Amino acid sequence: MVGRPGSTTRARILAVADGRRRARSDYLATEEPLEIRLVVAGARATVAVTMRTPGADFELAAGFLVGEGVIAGRGDLGRISYCTDPGIDAQQQYNIVNVGLTAAVLPDLGSLDRHFMTSSACGVCGKASLDALELRGCAVVPAGPALDPAVLPRLPGALRGGQGLFGSTGGLHAAGLFTPDGQLVALREDVGRHNAVDKLVGWAVMAGRLPLNDHVLLVSGRSSYEIVQKALAAGIPVVCAVSAPSSLAVDLARRFGMTLVGFLRGERFNVYAGEERLGLPR
Amino acid sequence: MVGRPGSTTRARILAVADGRRRARSDYLATEEPLEIRLVVAGARATVAVTMRTPGADFELAAGFLVGEGVIAGRGDLGRISYCTDPGIDAQQQYNIVNVGLTAAVLPDLGSLDRHFMTSSACGVCGKASLDALELRGCAVVPAGPALDPAVLPRLPGALRGGQGLFGSTGGLHAAGLFTPDGQLVALREDVGRHNAVDKLVGWAVMAGRLPLNDHVLLVSGRSSYEIVQKALAAGIPVVCAVSAPSSLAVDLARRFGMTLVGFLRGERFNVYAGEERLGLPR
Repeated sequence: MVGRPGSTTRARILAVADGRRRARSDYLATEEPLEIRLVVAGARATVAVTMRTPGADFELAAGFLVGEGVIAGRGDLGRISYCTDPGIDAQQQYNIVNVGLTAAVLPDLGSLDRHFMTSSACGVCGKASLDALELRGCAVVPAGPALDPAVLPRLPGALRGGQGLFGSTGGLHAAGLFTPDGQLVALREDVGRHNAVDKLVGWAVMAGRLPLNDHVLLVSGRSSYEIVQKALAAGIPVVCAVSAPSSLAVDLARRFGMTLVGFLRGERFNVYAGEERLGLPR
Repeated sequence: MVGRPGSTTRARILAVADGRRRARSDYLATEEPLEIRLVVAGARATVAVTMRTPGADFELAAGFLVGEGVIAGRGDLGRISYCTDPGIDAQQQYNIVNVGLTAAVLPDLGSLDRHFMTSSACGVCGKASLDALELRGCAVVPAGPALDPAVLPRLPGALRGGQGLFGSTGGLHAAGLFTPDGQLVALREDVGRHNAVDKLVGWAVMAGRLPLNDHVLLVSGRSSYEIVQKALAAGIPVVCAVSAPSSLAVDLARRFGMTLVGFLRGERFNVYAGEERLGLPR
């Protein structure tokens, strides 16, 4: 994408209802990394890279710094601007925000509650993030398995049935690993959806089961870049979610040959990538 | 909490339905930090601190390392154990996992896609995290404002009404700032709930409006430690959520004199902390 990214992204998807397919255009929430840099008297420091929806980026940067205790009021803030350094790619400059502080020196970053942070390899635009995965050795997942689309609508019920009563009331996110014919292999829960996926993958690696090329992952909420990336690293070719995917989750799935299903509810679901694994009637 | 924390935590709450209150005991999803350390030939490095629900901690650590590309299979893993160093508090040892690697040297941590991290101040147990906020100067929020409990049930509708059609379909999280009489002051959306709160707080700090002592925050999903901590840093005394809070969100709200409301749906809601701001009939 060149120029300023919008908060929504259009994508061609396949809507499936009661076994019938229909191609249509849909809107996705845009997900792109934002790098937040502090600028004090010519000195600079990156304090965070967060995956966010473009829009209100200066506010996001300023609010993040309030939360981390770096600034307390307007008087602490200098100029806020997108990065326009020579050498910064046009498509990346809206993903970097420089926040000037009125302080005399850069704050001690070691005193931040957390630094979310990031290697330079992570890059600052979605495309760079995908490139980094390739550089790290993440390969396109192998073809297969073939999935009967009639299996998919059964998965959310199996996931809820496998959760304890507490988790199924919405107190915890769940991630489930299934066979292609819909058998639940393992289920993990957590307040963080990404942690539930880590627990599943960790169970598999400790059991010597990686890569999980013949499995389907279902998460109870949305699918973001982070969820799809964790599935890719574990070799899981099919990711399903009860809610919406982000734009970068879709880009990632398409780039690495994965199947991505969203809004899996009742007899309906949307296919955002990799429809070839689903033997859908034409 | 001493000893191994469970995945749920019991709490006394106030359930309000149609204006009537009832005290009862409820279960919360436990949220505690987990520090993941690599151990290679006697050398150690902290690679992540993540807020998680205790349980399957070794799997969480191993799965996280797969996602980050540090390990690819069981053969890369050595012994995984809780930290039992002398000097580690009993209540903290179940919040630190040491992961032994069979590699000859520690991996180059700069090559990780991201390091979540953390200063030592962040601590490794929930209590230490709360202590760190106090050390950073976060004070108990002032008393007030007084809220009419009849206002609360109107807030979720106002939030959805303020979202665009796309956001209200579930594609984006929303955070809204309200006056005590239920007027929507500002609303921001994002794929990340924490980003939506940062955008709101950033708007306020840029407008010279901090601290937001006379405001109510509503988030569209759950309330975690992170959400309540961001509200505290901005001086917001009342946090409401459409879904459940975590245990650490409740602990944080109680420690800093905040009001925390969850499951705000229809004419019902639960009060987890700070009921004194709500003039509830006895």
